[in-house]
Amino acid sequence: MSLLVLGSIALDTVKTPLEERADLLGGSASYASLAASFFSPVQLVGIVGEDFPQENITLFRKNRIDLEGLQVVPGKTFRWSGEYLWDMNQRETRSVELNVFENFSPELPESYRSARMILLGNIAPALQNHVLDQLTRPHFVIADTMDLWINVAKEELVRLIARVDMLILNDGEARELTGETSLIKAGRRIREMGPSFVAIKKGEHGCLLFGENQFFSCPAYPLEDIHDPTGAGDCFAGGLAGYLASRQLDALDPSKKQEISFELLRQAVVEGSVIASFNVESFSMDRLRTVTSADIAERYGIFRTLSRFEGL
Amino acid sequence: MSLLVLGSIALDTVKTPLEERADLLGGSASYASLAASFFSPVQLVGIVGEDFPQENITLFRKNRIDLEGLQVVPGKTFRWSGEYLWDMNQRETRSVELNVFENFSPELPESYRSARMILLGNIAPALQNHVLDQLTRPHFVIADTMDLWINVAKEELVRLIARVDMLILNDGEARELTGETSLIKAGRRIREMGPSFVAIKKGEHGCLLFGENQFFSCPAYPLEDIHDPTGAGDCFAGGLAGYLASRQLDALDPSKKQEISFELLRQAVVEGSVIASFNVESFSMDRLRTVTSADIAERYGIFRTLSRFEGL
Repeated sequence: MSLLVLGSIALDTVKTPLEERADLLGGSASYASLAASFFSPVQLVGIVGEDFPQENITLFRKNRIDLEGLQVVPGKTFRWSGEYLWDMNQRETRSVELNVFENFSPELPESYRSARMILLGNIAPALQNHVLDQLTRPHFVIADTMDLWINVAKEELVRLIARVDMLILNDGEARELTGETSLIKAGRRIREMGPSFVAIKKGEHGCLLFGENQFFSCPAYPLEDIHDPTGAGDCFAGGLAGYLASRQLDALDPSKKQEISFELLRQAVVEGSVIASFNVESFSMDRLRTVTSADIAERYGIFRTLSRFEGL
Repeated sequence: MSLLVLGSIALDTVKTPLEERADLLGGSASYASLAASFFSPVQLVGIVGEDFPQENITLFRKNRIDLEGLQVVPGKTFRWSGEYLWDMNQRETRSVELNVFENFSPELPESYRSARMILLGNIAPALQNHVLDQLTRPHFVIADTMDLWINVAKEELVRLIARVDMLILNDGEARELTGETSLIKAGRRIREMGPSFVAIKKGEHGCLLFGENQFFSCPAYPLEDIHDPTGAGDCFAGGLAGYLASRQLDALDPSKKQEISFELLRQAVVEGSVIASFNVESFSMDRLRTVTSADIAERYGIFRTLSRFEGL
């Protein structure tokens, strides 16, 4: 089954203490689509300008990412520039040029409207709601967000949260959204806002997954060096959603349709963590261009070893 | 097998946003001994003044904590007073009265010198080294420490670290001791200083255990409310060490002596986390006074559920 992915597509300039690179493929939809494509075909919804390099289009196509929903319009592609401080834990945005993104109104092609598995990647919640309005029978909707939208579009975000099956956000955002210091309380509070499932990302500390009276603590992969954290959250969401889509063999055939159980979501959270852990090993999507299914399966096994312990 | 526990014994005054209580039994050795006693007998090494309440002595004795190594001397018991801020994550020390602690020089009774399993609880590293000097054939030595000793007694602490089998410290302390921001690098660096094993406690994010080319990420128990975090780290160390001692049925009989393997340490880290998670549910050691072996076994099972996920 295909996964529909909405989000930004950008050309990034990233500076780390060791290196600076420009015109990198970036944006939430780019990262999430490529991450998801390891598990399932993707239908991409986004916008770029006429300056968007053909090699990126080629990369998407090569990875079974359908581009019927990609608008290519006169003007320049969205640009973002950021700098990581010496410990790679803090990031400063240096500049943002909205360009063609400024007037983006995602209109789904007819063939996308019946999508069942949806990832509303990090983008303005008004656009996330607008895409949701166009879907005829969504089966499972995942939304990712960021602190910016809590600050500038909270009402619209709260309206979105009430409509989705799963919300993904990081620890600071969960605390900001709920006013709770305890992440355990924050997870419960967000579930009360609508979603059956909530994933709270904690960076180097892994991820917490909340369901109804169910809880999963996913470890972080013990990386010694992080070369570029950009897109890690988008890869997590994309890998997670792509894995879920891959397990829904045919949503129209009940015998092949798997329930989105908490057990399945545990695995999906690990798959998302695996893809994100690869992504931060290189700039932009360089590592994702070379990683293989065997690499992913091997690291999934390592995640099992990390947190395994015997009964008494 | 008995566990030898060295550390402080205190009368604490603790203030949280909801409550303030005085003259509570506290100190690293008190918490660690009571935590360990769920798994093994304890030989306690510490000092108190003549004002130390008899009911605390009774509590120790009732929990198979041997007090031959407890010095009761003229003067007042060590007192500590602290306050937790509203989110319970930050603590301010309000006052410290060293009292009898000021001239403490732990001298082991003859029967303690042959101890095989040792927990050097949080106390000045000079005292930890001094106890280590008196042991005739230690099998496995665990040391706990805190930021104070990194700041005021680093040389002595580094000398201690080189002599122990396992070091326990928290994330901030690991970063301060090594100058590494990455906890993964910090864990490796501390192992290079001597100990075969390092446990880095991360509070609400659980704990990391490092061995030679081995790594374990232990989840935190998802508590919504913490009533008093005092002693959580000491309970973790005590539970861990007590569990290891309980698995060494008879160190003199090779057929009954179990190797301290990484597998066994994974379980010990979880047992320590279980005891610590109970301890923070009430003031002082109130919760540990009522918790049962069945409670502990049940929560160990919950820890397994928290981080479990299926293979692909």
